Amino acid sequence: MVANRGPVSYARSPSGERITRRGGGGLVTALRSLVAHHEVTWIASALSDEDRVVAEEHEGDAFDETWRDDSPYRLRLVAHEPRAFGGFYNVVANPTLWFLQHYMWGLAYAPDVDVGLRDAWFNGYVPVNEGFANAIVAEIDRRPDAAVFLHDYHLYLTPKLVRERRPGARLTHFIHIPWPETDYWHVLPAHLRVAIHEGVLANDILGLHTHRWRHNFLRACADIVGAEVDHAASTVTHDGRTTLVTSHPIGVDPAELEELRNDASVLEQERLIAARRPEFLIVRVDRTDPSKNVVRGFRAFALYLDRHPEMLGRVTLLALLDPSRQDIPEYTEYLAAIEREARSVNERFQRDGWLPVDLQIADNFAQSIAAYKQYDALLVNPVFDGLNLVSKEAPFLNERDGVLILSENAGSHEELGEWALTVNPFDIDGQAEAINAALTMEGGERKRRLEALRACMREHDLAAWVAAQLADLDRVS
Amino acid sequence: MVANRGPVSYARSPSGERITRRGGGGLVTALRSLVAHHEVTWIASALSDEDRVVAEEHEGDAFDETWRDDSPYRLRLVAHEPRAFGGFYNVVANPTLWFLQHYMWGLAYAPDVDVGLRDAWFNGYVPVNEGFANAIVAEIDRRPDAAVFLHDYHLYLTPKLVRERRPGARLTHFIHIPWPETDYWHVLPAHLRVAIHEGVLANDILGLHTHRWRHNFLRACADIVGAEVDHAASTVTHDGRTTLVTSHPIGVDPAELEELRNDASVLEQERLIAARRPEFLIVRVDRTDPSKNVVRGFRAFALYLDRHPEMLGRVTLLALLDPSRQDIPEYTEYLAAIEREARSVNERFQRDGWLPVDLQIADNFAQSIAAYKQYDALLVNPVFDGLNLVSKEAPFLNERDGVLILSENAGSHEELGEWALTVNPFDIDGQAEAINAALTMEGGERKRRLEALRACMREHDLAAWVAAQLADLDRVS
Repeated sequence: MVANRGPVSYARSPSGERITRRGGGGLVTALRSLVAHHEVTWIASALSDEDRVVAEEHEGDAFDETWRDDSPYRLRLVAHEPRAFGGFYNVVANPTLWFLQHYMWGLAYAPDVDVGLRDAWFNGYVPVNEGFANAIVAEIDRRPDAAVFLHDYHLYLTPKLVRERRPGARLTHFIHIPWPETDYWHVLPAHLRVAIHEGVLANDILGLHTHRWRHNFLRACADIVGAEVDHAASTVTHDGRTTLVTSHPIGVDPAELEELRNDASVLEQERLIAARRPEFLIVRVDRTDPSKNVVRGFRAFALYLDRHPEMLGRVTLLALLDPSRQDIPEYTEYLAAIEREARSVNERFQRDGWLPVDLQIADNFAQSIAAYKQYDALLVNPVFDGLNLVSKEAPFLNERDGVLILSENAGSHEELGEWALTVNPFDIDGQAEAINAALTMEGGERKRRLEALRACMREHDLAAWVAAQLADLDRVS
Repeated sequence: MVANRGPVSYARSPSGERITRRGGGGLVTALRSLVAHHEVTWIASALSDEDRVVAEEHEGDAFDETWRDDSPYRLRLVAHEPRAFGGFYNVVANPTLWFLQHYMWGLAYAPDVDVGLRDAWFNGYVPVNEGFANAIVAEIDRRPDAAVFLHDYHLYLTPKLVRERRPGARLTHFIHIPWPETDYWHVLPAHLRVAIHEGVLANDILGLHTHRWRHNFLRACADIVGAEVDHAASTVTHDGRTTLVTSHPIGVDPAELEELRNDASVLEQERLIAARRPEFLIVRVDRTDPSKNVVRGFRAFALYLDRHPEMLGRVTLLALLDPSRQDIPEYTEYLAAIEREARSVNERFQRDGWLPVDLQIADNFAQSIAAYKQYDALLVNPVFDGLNLVSKEAPFLNERDGVLILSENAGSHEELGEWALTVNPFDIDGQAEAINAALTMEGGERKRRLEALRACMREHDLAAWVAAQLADLDRVS
């Protein structure tokens, strides 16, 4: 398993002892069953200072760790040169690639592909990918039959670097964000966009969440590197090698969610929400990422209140937002825009202790889960989104026959659109109408939709997603 | 011939007499030979107050006019309701469609598809297109065998409106701007993007400047309206009708350019430029449109000066910019950004009467032609551009073996890229290097490239473009 972020990170307690922090998040959850049943080595960047100390203690080699459930696995932390890592993470990966892959650059003004980006690429993204490739080669040499699972947009160059040195390696790579269409890749000069596509075409398998991103990837490979594409077989042949391109939307873990439902901290948060909530509660849970489209969501809510004065005092939009990537100017600016817009809506409508927009900027997992149970409408309106796990986890846990309002540009829309109210993320008017439709939907219809969503999630769960990856690997082996 | 802008516009002189202003521009020039050899009726919007008076005098019917060369043609001015025209032109066509089709929205913040856009669509774009459709139907009824040539992004709904009423109409539509890929069309809600694609698929022929935009159009038709696409035949079948999709890059008129070369006003402007110019002259000629990428061009020039102190005082970037669409906030903001950037470069580098960036914000046709003759390097670096006529006209007239620096995203790059220095429009570093390469290129190589460009333009001239359109019409008839 290879990803920039590992399943644990180390720190020092005030008394000087080493603390192990086990992260949550989709990918770590996703791989629980894999770790339980297979011999897994996880290769990740050393992110914290203490991670670097641990990496040094093991001279960069892998060491034994245990999963939450005590399953053993090996962890290998790659300690990158800090300046290289800064360029890799805060310039190339975010915002450059992230913004590009979510169609978010305002191209009249940004980005500038300048000396700074060039430096961050050649002295940041390239050496960090080389660091990962070195670690993978070392692990392959230890276990030549190992399958290598790479993850996401941090590692586009790694597969080719490994392939050049170990032609027989079994490489599969899952991209969790959208793959944009050809023209938009022209935000990068030819040598960069070619390097990215050739990098990932060194994999045996390239996985994406949806047919839409898979389709875009196939077309981009033909357009950008002149690869031979078989759309029916979903394969790309380039440089004498063939890559299978798959689409498997990641699922939720029903058992884990059921455990969380009655977790003590969740129940405590739920009591707080229930005590404060008015008659209707609209919920959104996101990182404060510009792709999540929080500002337009607030505008749509204001337009809705404008059109429905009978709802003043009776409905709150609870926005639980995890502050995200605040080292990057585009992200601090967007967080400020979120706060401005919330204040503007509240200044206009609030009265008698009723707050129209209840904005909570914090990383509070238990509060999010509690809100999932309590919503009457869930607003998921991203500009573009690879999948969007909130749109799956929240309906699974909801206990009020809440209605899902879902952007047509969220990857999950391919699976869930049928039972959601579809909105265009730029369409303020349409989102205001969807809020009204959600809050006035007849009870039987609400229940029918929510049950259909849950049935879909039980069928296409996390275990099925992992099994599909393994089956793909068997197919190409 | 149907286009928002006609070949003439009317005004009143100070003494109260009617003045006829004959416009220039690619399309009017392009159709000179057509008007000379065919019976042409031109349908256009009444744009000026006097246009509206003229339209009223003829009760909206066509009347006789003459071309510059005295060829007769009929003109039919459609007087739209002013508020409808405002929404049509200043909200829907620009910036919404223009920005969308040039990939220029910064999607985290804009556009908002709000009540204003909805109103501009239903009470602006739709009725203006209906006005054009009514005029076309009236003209078809007069001459049922007439071929109807529609132009550009102002008239996407018109073909279907005509087709519904006159199923046998012969309709061909040329789009002079890029056709973006499917995902980017999602900036518009489904009903709008579907209406646009279904609107133009009512044509018998849809023309674009390049293979790239043609390719995007074919894919978008399959993705957005589920049309049946035959890529080999370049046809789209939808609703039981088949549209031929062509790509014909528009050419220049060698005879007209040769006339201009020695025009008295051009020679006067050329003397002024020659008297002021330093050893090397870089020229750009554009509208002040955000898609033209003027700001990054100035940044690249500054980076070039930074790297080549030996060139201080020896090279000027002459930017001749026609102020464009200043009723639209995005355009006034971009003009301000242009002026700020020019000032910033000049404040940093200017000395002893040498101005690094000579910025002229004016509509001065003779000055532009004179600059075409005088450049050592021509900078054409648009973010995206349907074709870009400057990249053709200027090399044709250049008299100093000047080098063309050309964006890979300009439509003309498909034809001219081989003899240009290709740049990525976002790549400041690459543009600075291209400026250096252009100004240090060996004389024989410069001459060879410019002659090849001219040969290409003579072969694929304007007459060939018009002939190709007529041949396409014969093909589908």
